Order: sequence, then structure tokens, then C-alpha cells
Amino acid sequence: MAGWSQPGHGLLRGERGAVTVAGLEEANTSTQVIVLNGGSSSGKTGIARCLQAVLPPPWIRLGVDDLVDALPPSLDGSESGVAVGRHGEVTVGDDFRRIEAAWMSGIAAMATAGARIIVDDVFLGGAASQERTRAHLAGLTVLWVGVRCAPEIAAGREVARGDRVSGMAASQAARVHEGVVYDVEVDTAHAESLDCARVIAAYVT
Amino acid sequence: MAGWSQPGHGLLRGERGAVTVAGLEEANTSTQVIVLNGGSSSGKTGIARCLQAVLPPPWIRLGVDDLVDALPPSLDGSESGVAVGRHGEVTVGDDFRRIEAAWMSGIAAMATAGARIIVDDVFLGGAASQERTRAHLAGLTVLWVGVRCAPEIAAGREVARGDRVSGMAASQAARVHEGVVYDVEVDTAHAESLDCARVIAAYVT
Amino acid sequence: MAGWSQPGHGLLRGERGAVTVAGLEEANTSTQVIVLNGGSSSGKTGIARCLQAVLPPPWIRLGVDDLVDALPPSLDGSESGVAVGRHGEVTVGDDFRRIEAAWMSGIAAMATAGARIIVDDVFLGGAASQERTRAHLAGLTVLWVGVRCAPEIAAGREVARGDRVSGMAASQAARVHEGVVYDVEVDTAHAESLDCARVIAAYVT
Amino acid sequence: MAGWSQPGHGLLRGERGAVTVAGLEEANTSTQVIVLNGGSSSGKTGIARCLQAVLPPPWIRLGVDDLVDALPPSLDGSESGVAVGRHGEVTVGDDFRRIEAAWMSGIAAMATAGARIIVDDVFLGGAASQERTRAHLAGLTVLWVGVRCAPEIAAGREVARGDRVSGMAASQAARVHEGVVYDVEVDTAHAESLDCARVIAAYVT
Repeated sequence: MAGWSQPGHGLLRGERGAVTVAGLEEANTSTQVIVLNGGSSSGKTGIARCLQAVLPPPWIRLGVDDLVDALPPSLDGSESGVAVGRHGEVTVGDDFRRIEAAWMSGIAAMATAGARIIVDDVFLGGAASQERTRAHLAGLTVLWVGVRCAPEIAAGREVARGDRVSGMAASQAARVHEGVVYDVEVDTAHAESLDCARVIAAYVT
Repeated sequence: MAGWSQPGHGLLRGERGAVTVAGLEEANTSTQVIVLNGGSSSGKTGIARCLQAVLPPPWIRLGVDDLVDALPPSLDGSESGVAVGRHGEVTVGDDFRRIEAAWMSGIAAMATAGARIIVDDVFLGGAASQERTRAHLAGLTVLWVGVRCAPEIAAGREVARGDRVSGMAASQAARVHEGVVYDVEVDTAHAESLDCARVIAAYVT
Repeated sequence: MAGWSQPGHGLLRGERGAVTVAGLEEANTSTQVIVLNGGSSSGKTGIARCLQAVLPPPWIRLGVDDLVDALPPSLDGSESGVAVGRHGEVTVGDDFRRIEAAWMSGIAAMATAGARIIVDDVFLGGAASQERTRAHLAGLTVLWVGVRCAPEIAAGREVARGDRVSGMAASQAARVHEGVVYDVEVDTAHAESLDCARVIAAYVT
Repeated sequence: MAGWSQPGHGLLRGERGAVTVAGLEEANTSTQVIVLNGGSSSGKTGIARCLQAVLPPPWIRLGVDDLVDALPPSLDGSESGVAVGRHGEVTVGDDFRRIEAAWMSGIAAMATAGARIIVDDVFLGGAASQERTRAHLAGLTVLWVGVRCAPEIAAGREVARGDRVSGMAASQAARVHEGVVYDVEVDTAHAESLDCARVIAAYVT
């Protein structure tokens, strides 16, 4: 399906130039979900916003931070929910995992219903996290993007933004990429967010 | 469905393996989604947070404001997206409606997958908005809650919060309830958010 | 002096109708600083915003929260700076007290230079805090306002706002008013912010 | 250094009573205010936070954004206050100028009273803005810092942050530096915030 599903509208099609009658076939090859994976303070959210600016609309942006914001206070800081330790290490419990699974089912349903979604995520479990995410997004065309940033640079940006527990950036910088397979990778230590977004956008079909 | 919070229960049906007949019956009568409908500055978000505190966890909280935050900049302030006029009147275009429909499909999928969700909404179209929402949530047990607040009081709270275009509260106060049918209604002009949440919680099964 | 101090400008004078030649005499009786004192979640900030809306401009709004935001990370959460305990109890150390003293000197200088200032404060030390503040504002015409709210109601609002450590509201509700002398008091448990602001505005000369 | 942080030193000059000749000399050479001037999205605030982390505490951080936040709604978006045009051009009126003058008097008084202050500013008038600021800070030891960023890079970061009117960064990038004299300049297009902060910190005496 090309873009939003209402026949006759062709919201995105018109901007693409050549749209075949076989809209459904096109659907099989059009990116429906962009997953940005990177550690805290690696610059994912900035890239996601730039992607929204450079891609033909409407891509919406949802991330694990939105899910954390949606949690009840009892899961914020608790063992069964999400907790951030003194040195920025994040631990997640079973209750959070179950909600996250339901949340990902919802993201998949939104994409199936025609929304184009940029998911801003942190694969705390590396390859295992990717497998879980892949299972939830089964049947959708996903672009897997690695957002890398050297730990010492991410740590410096963590200081500059001032709203994260110190240590989170460094502890996640390498770990979230372990064993993860990408379609494209960008490095925010060496390129601006907007330039990274342009690189990624070239992979969006 | 037993949902999330009961001790000793498996959390997601699929993970339990054996679901008894009793479980299924229970499922049919347990609230899966709470829809809070009210105008801007009527106090919906405060009530939603209080509901998260008084209900057994984990209820997550998602609202139309989260969707608006997720939009690309091209839909923010545009005719096809969401625009707020000089006097606080909100208009939504076709592109927004399509994304909103996909978003609601996602909310429904999250609830079907076992999440309990408090939806914080503004039925700009009154009864027609409720019908659209009802269609998206078909098959789920929904508690419909009206959050009322006298327009002049909501307008005063709009001044006090300082982050909304002046006029939005007054223009929505009555309109969003036109023709809408509720299971329970609360009035934030006469009761604190936490007390409203306790009233609502008594209707959650 | 009425309003801003530049001779010949009369920024606010023109709006007042009858301004005598004796501008300086008028100055002695015109309110230069409004100090709002109340516990966390008592509604001070909402009242301050409403005051800005109902008073002839330009009143600016500065509060202890702005000072806390301005602190270096080393003083946030430390014994010598400002720390919030598990149950919401706030403790302040010597370093914070010294910065606060310099901050208050600055507020006084702004008012002396012609700015009208609404100070949003929390007198953790009750009467002693008021004495310190009074000393810093010596020579200025100050309106002292008590913002009261029953502890159980403030605690409920703390839940509804969701961004404060639980317990802060209850622990401060009575304590911050101990021995403090006011020109006017309002109670946000029984009146909306805008109505409280109108009551206070009537005392502004 | 007279300042705040060194153990064994009296903190505020006035509180020590007897200040030795050596102390005064020391005072004359100690930085009391750091003024960071740069266009929107040039990275001033990030550098300011990093400075707070690398300098011995306690430096507080205050900026023109804090002043804008403190304004009454009637001055936000008005001709006499601060207005942002369709293309991000900022215009300030007489009322804002008067409040800003009082604000700067207050900043100077805070520094005189012993606070060390990082001022995060945008010299919309270039050299003229610096002269005004210099006059307000007369008698204080000020470190003037230019925060440069190529307009196209600042514009890209404006997209990435998503909370500024498009065009503001580009329109200010060069203009705010016209005729301004600095003690040290940094370029955020070529160095991280934390590295810029370290460069600047070496000039703090």
C-alpha cells in the first residue's frame, strides 16, 4: 500500500511521480516503519525530527520515551517497571516488558492501517531486542537504522542536554548495537542530524 | 480477561497457555479502555494521572496530545493537519484524520494485546467523534467518561496554565459533549481530579 | 515612581488616567514586588500567571523554581545545594542559601530599576524565611500574599500534575505559613486561580 | 578568589568584614560573569551547562530565554514586547527593552553580591547590544565569549530540535556577532559543547 490507504486519494503517490496501478505491489516494497536504534544521547530524536522534515509527509514519530511517559507512576523507578541506577544504567522488569510488547503490537497495527512510523528505540538487549521488535513488525517493510556515537562524545552531549542521569550515554553506546543488523548506519559524532537524515532517507522506498 | 494486575495470573493471554472458560467470561466484563472526553483545560490529563495512581497497575495513558506531538512539522499548523486559530478554535484536516484513524487502530491493538489504556481525547465532532472512536474500539470493553467543566472556569484555568491559545477552553467546553453518551460523568468545576478519578475507578470492572 | 523609571516615559502612567506631577511620591505607595508564598502544589504559579493577565503590564514572574533550574548539577540533589528526600521533604544547604541571597539581591535590584516582579516562593523556614526576604527587599513596596491549600487537597493535585516527588505538597502545606504575616491570603481549595488573582490584584496599589 | 566554592574562604565579600588587599586584587582578576553570545541554535545553552559541569561550582545560568519566559502574555508576540515573525525574525519593542534593562541591573547585582553567573544571550543588535550589556555590568569582571556556528549548520540543528520557528537560526547566525569584541570564541560546527566549554573555562580566572 502506498501511504494512506484510502483509494483515490494517493496522498503520497502524487509526489512520487510514477505510481503504477499495482498500488498493492508497490506496498510490498515501500518502507512502512523506520526503526532508529541507538544509545541515550546518540541523537536519535533529532534525526527522527529531521527525517520528518525531509521525507514526504506524513511520517509520525513514536519512541520508547513516549511509552515510558505513558506508564503509571508505580512502574517508574520500580523493579518491575523501568529504573535508572546511580550510574545511568537502565533496568527493565517484567511488567514493562509486557506493556512494551502490547505497545509494539499497537505500533505494528498503526503501520498496517497506513501510518508511516519512525520508531525511536534503545535496544538494551542488542540482538535479542531486535528479534523481539522484528517479530512484532512481521509482515511490514522495516528499515533498520543504527545511530552510532562514540561513548565519550555521547557522554559529553549528555552533560550538555542536562536532563539525563549521568552515565546513561556511556553505558549504552556500544551495548545497544551488539549483534544488531542494519540496513544503514549513521554516526552522529561525524555528521549533523540533518545530514544523517538525508542519508537514511535515501534508503526509504 | 484478567489483564495485567491480578497477582498470580499470567499477564498476557498468549503467555498463559491455558485460559479457562471462567477467564474468558471475566475478559468480557473487564474494562480494557477508559476514554476520557472533555474540552481543553477541563482537567482530563490530571484525572488520567490520578486514575493511574488509584487503579491497580498498569494502566497506560495516551492522548490526542501525544498524537499531535508525533506529527511531522508540515501537519502542525496546516490546513490538512491540525491548526489552532487566533481565538483558540481547532480545525483538523484530512491528513490528520487519516493518521488519527491509524493511531486509533493501534490503540485498539494495544488493548487487544493486553494493555489497559486510558485515552485522553477531545471529541471536536461530538457524537460523530464518539462513533468513530467506538468503531475503532469494537470488541473491546470501553468505559466512556465525560469530563465536564463550565466554560468560564475552564477559560480561567487556561490562563493559569499559560500554555494554550486563549479561547480554546471556552470554544470546546460544551461542543465536545454534544450527543455523546457516557457511562459516567465528572465535573472538575466542583470536584478535585483525584476525587473524580475515584468516582470513575468505581466503574472500572 | 509609577512603573519603569525612565523620566519622561511614563510607561504605565498613561494607562492609569490621573497621574500627579508628584510621580515620586506615588512611587512610595505603588506595589513593586508581590511575594506569593505557599507550599508545593498550592497553586502559586497559576495565580502568578493570572496576575500577569489581570494586572496592567508589565509584571514579570520569577520564582524559586527558576533559581533551582539555574543551579549547577553539583548543587542539585546535594547536601550543600537542594535535595528532595524520599517522602518529598526538601532540604537546602549553605551553598544554596548563599546563592539564594545573591539572587534575592538581584530581584531587589530589578525592582529598584523599575521592573514589577511577582516572586513565587516557598518559605521553608516560615517566619525566618520571610525576615530574610524582607531584608533583601528593604526599601521596596512589597505585597505579601499567602497562598493556602489544605494539605490533602494539595497532595491530590500533586498526584494530578505528576511531576513532583510524592509527599512534598503535604509536608509543606502548613509549615511554610508558620509565623508569616500577610497583606492578603487566598485559599486555592475554595477558589479558582483567576479569582484568587483578582482578589490579590485589588491590593496592588 | 572571592567566589563561592573554595573551602576556607568567606563567601560574600560583604559578609567577611575585613577584606585584605590581596583579596581585593584577587577580586579584580576573578571572572564574575561569563557572557555567551550567539544566534539561536548555535549551542549556547549546551555550552553553558557544560561550563557548570567543568567549572568549580557554583556558577548559575541565566539567559534571555528565562526573561522571555517571565514576561506577561501581553508582551509575548506583541509589538511592544517580543515577537517572532513567519521566517523566524525576532523583533523587540520598547517595553521589552525596558524590562531587559531592569533584568540586566538585577544580574549585575547578583554578581556583585557574590554569585557567579553565566549569561546566555543573543545580541540582536550586535555591537550596540554589547555596549548596553557592558554598561549594565560596569565594575564587574566579565568574560565575553562568542559562540559561532555556520548558518546552514545552525539551521539544520533548528530542524533537529523542533521547538523553534524555522529561519531564526539562519537569520541570527552572523548578525549577532557584528562588531562584537570577544575574549574567546568557539565554533560549535567544529567542536562539541563540552570541548568548547573546556576552551572557555581556561579563560576563567
